[in-house]
Amino acid sequence: MSIFSRTDIFVLFLSMALMLGSAWFLAEIFRRLKLPAVAGEILAGIMLGPTLFGRISPSIYSSIFPSGYTSVHISLESFILIGAVLLLLVAGLEIDLSSVVSQGKNVVIITAFSIIIPFTIGAYIAYRFPGLFGITESSYPLSVFIGISVSITALPLIARILMNIQLFHSDIGMLIMTAAVITDLVGWLLFSLLIQLVHTGSVDLYVLSKTILFTIAISLFILTILRSGINRILPWIQAKTEWPGGIISFTIITGFILAAMTEAIGIHAIFGAFLAGIAIGDSPHLREQTRNTITQFVDNIFAPLFFVSIGLRVDFFDNFSPVLPIIMLSIILFGKFSSVIIASRFIGMKIRESLAVASGMSSSGAMGIILGIFALQNGLISSNVFEAIVITAVITSLISGPLMKFFLKQKESLKLIDLLDNGLYIRNLKAGNSIEAIRIMTKQLTGLNDISPEKIAAGVIARENMMSTGIGSSIAVPHARFDELKKSVVITAQSESGVDFNAFDGKEAKLIFMILSPFNDQQSQIQILADISRIFQDKDIRERTFNAKSYNEFIAAIKPFYFKK
Amino acid sequence: MSIFSRTDIFVLFLSMALMLGSAWFLAEIFRRLKLPAVAGEILAGIMLGPTLFGRISPSIYSSIFPSGYTSVHISLESFILIGAVLLLLVAGLEIDLSSVVSQGKNVVIITAFSIIIPFTIGAYIAYRFPGLFGITESSYPLSVFIGISVSITALPLIARILMNIQLFHSDIGMLIMTAAVITDLVGWLLFSLLIQLVHTGSVDLYVLSKTILFTIAISLFILTILRSGINRILPWIQAKTEWPGGIISFTIITGFILAAMTEAIGIHAIFGAFLAGIAIGDSPHLREQTRNTITQFVDNIFAPLFFVSIGLRVDFFDNFSPVLPIIMLSIILFGKFSSVIIASRFIGMKIRESLAVASGMSSSGAMGIILGIFALQNGLISSNVFEAIVITAVITSLISGPLMKFFLKQKESLKLIDLLDNGLYIRNLKAGNSIEAIRIMTKQLTGLNDISPEKIAAGVIARENMMSTGIGSSIAVPHARFDELKKSVVITAQSESGVDFNAFDGKEAKLIFMILSPFNDQQSQIQILADISRIFQDKDIRERTFNAKSYNEFIAAIKPFYFKK
Repeated sequence: MSIFSRTDIFVLFLSMALMLGSAWFLAEIFRRLKLPAVAGEILAGIMLGPTLFGRISPSIYSSIFPSGYTSVHISLESFILIGAVLLLLVAGLEIDLSSVVSQGKNVVIITAFSIIIPFTIGAYIAYRFPGLFGITESSYPLSVFIGISVSITALPLIARILMNIQLFHSDIGMLIMTAAVITDLVGWLLFSLLIQLVHTGSVDLYVLSKTILFTIAISLFILTILRSGINRILPWIQAKTEWPGGIISFTIITGFILAAMTEAIGIHAIFGAFLAGIAIGDSPHLREQTRNTITQFVDNIFAPLFFVSIGLRVDFFDNFSPVLPIIMLSIILFGKFSSVIIASRFIGMKIRESLAVASGMSSSGAMGIILGIFALQNGLISSNVFEAIVITAVITSLISGPLMKFFLKQKESLKLIDLLDNGLYIRNLKAGNSIEAIRIMTKQLTGLNDISPEKIAAGVIARENMMSTGIGSSIAVPHARFDELKKSVVITAQSESGVDFNAFDGKEAKLIFMILSPFNDQQSQIQILADISRIFQDKDIRERTFNAKSYNEFIAAIKPFYFKK
Repeated sequence: MSIFSRTDIFVLFLSMALMLGSAWFLAEIFRRLKLPAVAGEILAGIMLGPTLFGRISPSIYSSIFPSGYTSVHISLESFILIGAVLLLLVAGLEIDLSSVVSQGKNVVIITAFSIIIPFTIGAYIAYRFPGLFGITESSYPLSVFIGISVSITALPLIARILMNIQLFHSDIGMLIMTAAVITDLVGWLLFSLLIQLVHTGSVDLYVLSKTILFTIAISLFILTILRSGINRILPWIQAKTEWPGGIISFTIITGFILAAMTEAIGIHAIFGAFLAGIAIGDSPHLREQTRNTITQFVDNIFAPLFFVSIGLRVDFFDNFSPVLPIIMLSIILFGKFSSVIIASRFIGMKIRESLAVASGMSSSGAMGIILGIFALQNGLISSNVFEAIVITAVITSLISGPLMKFFLKQKESLKLIDLLDNGLYIRNLKAGNSIEAIRIMTKQLTGLNDISPEKIAAGVIARENMMSTGIGSSIAVPHARFDELKKSVVITAQSESGVDFNAFDGKEAKLIFMILSPFNDQQSQIQILADISRIFQDKDIRERTFNAKSYNEFIAAIKPFYFKK
């Protein structure tokens, strides 16, 4: 008969909708505050879980999120397990193994420091002060685990930040990525061994070395022979099978097979998925579009369910003590941070770059949390230690990105979309000529103390008279620079009837972007102009913006451009 | 403690990899045979299930696909349940409700005939001959179910076929789609009521009419007020939240909420997901790209798992009798087919069009199978009836598409990719000028009895001398038409050094397509030329083809174009 009763089906979809909905809501709020979305998703889980919702209304809570061996609970757990495997698969896809290999011995030194010192400090403290971790006697497995959890890095987070500041493919970007990849590979390897030891219960040196050799052999096989086989078979798959379905299927199936294989030989399934991701993602034949499709689905379904589920596992107010998180944070921030700086300086990096590398390496993020969940499930740690790991991961994630950006002094390139503003937007401009259009548009400016709209209009008109700014395809970009401005401002107008900006193709402008920049900041002006010209090469975007009926429709028309890039 | 043991995790990923892998393999084979991929996925399940694999090796089978209340079985079932909900959500997204509404009374007549007559025949036979359906006494619920299952149509299949032959947005295409949508809405509504009655056990007329009214009210609410609300909120979501993650999240969350809601009021969850899909998909603000991302993931992960799972449920060799499938096929092919023809003729359609509409409506496909699974799970039908439903669905799916294409006499527009051939491809052509290039390329032609390569070369050169065929961007398209050819042939050459085809932009051709068509088939020639010019507008595709190192890489470079369209 059916596994699911009608009530089960109702509860399953309701609980998933609640998890996804609250995750989405808080992730969006965090994004607006320029904080990592994943921290918002974790907070959503804490609010939905025993910490808040379960405390306010225990009976409703336990009927929406039933525990124990019930079909709804098992279903959610299976989704989360598969989500973890897919998350690691996607993280692997981001990695460019060829660059890793080319980094040479510098990266070995940084990696060695970034693992050995924090691992030693973490393991020592856990062994020396077991009481802090809720146990009475020193435990080797727990000590090793704490060592791993303060060594591991937030690989997906680092990759995303480096992409944001456009340093992913730079030398320093690849150095940070490579160090993070090796650290995580070693971390997962150690963790897999640890779980295996806990399960077999023995620390037989013969068994241990056999397992280590076996794991290294499997990893090498996947990352060399299998990787080159995949690179050869990918063009065949893309040519001979359904596109892009074939390549998506191939990626997921390979991930699942290696997950099953690594689980079978006693290493954790997600380690296999991670290696599968690296082996596939390294091929130049894998298209950005394919990677995006997989990533989008994992990021918007499986990842939120996974991160929300963290808060459902433990009550963060129950017996909470700030001591443990503070100790773990201190190990990471002092032990790891300083050891990476020492290593970076040792290989001859500048102080600022060393600080950036150290900031990048010093966050445990999602990787730390995934480790924590499996350790909790395997009875390796108590819920208090789990809470400390989550809190440490969230806090280090929050500070690592801004620090890395600060030390690399890299400003994100100005994007048109970040400068658009509902208050500086005219839905349907009616103007007889370009001069009149410029006058009307500058009237939108308010709150400028040092310069009047009239003076700005005069400046833009003077520039317009030198050479008209109709760039063709019904778009015009009047612009000028002023001493009095502190940052760039863009005023946007749609015009259904069109305004003549003397474009070479004779088309009247239906879309006018007036770009006003500080006098000594020619670079911003150029970046914005270049962005506009790239965006509106796309005919679909042009037509959607010309026909937009509201500011939101206008923004919605432009946004996909930044995703394709 | 953990829900999943290490063995569970291994088995879960292994079974999913097996299901996805075999589904992918057989779907690809079916696609090459121009058969629906879904039939291949179903066959994969029958081979993996008790019918074949379970018979050959029962012990291995039952350890990979454990049954009963085990965590692996529950996990797979939950994936399949969520897969069914997502499948219906995606089917709903394909529907253009506005066109449905504008179809007027003609569609009402066709729909009425296409439901009432087959429903009556199906229900009557089931009621009159219960023995055929494995029961001793006549049963109302079973009779109603058989009636529904011969009335329902394969909506997603019809949509895909109409898109393939480019009639989706034509009058007759929209008529077929509309009739199918209404038929399926009524079918699911009846089925939901039926399940509710089976569960409450009563056929109280008061309760029945209350439920019907309630269901209609909910459906109308979703399809009017909620739909217009969604249409208004979509631009806001696309403008204000992460793109395209926000809109993907919104779609899935809405689907899950309405699935939970409809399940709560006693209608089946997938009916709610279907309505959610229609309400969201109808908005012009939903981008094709967003729909594609969701559809790709559902099509390549959830749908294959779902269709493979069919074969895991029953042993098709056990007590199999061909009588029931033949009866059900006869009801559909004679009852439904002829009644739709009568209705179409009645409203004044031409005989050929009537036949096309009837072919389109006469397949139960995935919709019929989804119905069957839930009926089996709810104890409404025996496994024999389920087998008959699956067989009927597969056979009608196989014949409905080709019949519809045949009666509409619509040829699929010629695509370059279908004409490319490894035997007619030169990896690196070395030629001093265009005449020499044409001579070398025509030498690839073999097996032409009526005309020699020399004569073809002469014809192409004569055409080339009239006006050169370098179309710029390093592409040339020499072409000619010949009485002796029966169908169009394309010979392709890459040239690393380039060949001068006298292009307006002065660029030497790095890619040469020689297009040879039958003399009286100018249309094919035009279609191929147009296709080439559209494909190679894309700079990324141009560069990837110029740099392709093998035929497979070359094809893989072109293929994404057909997906974007």
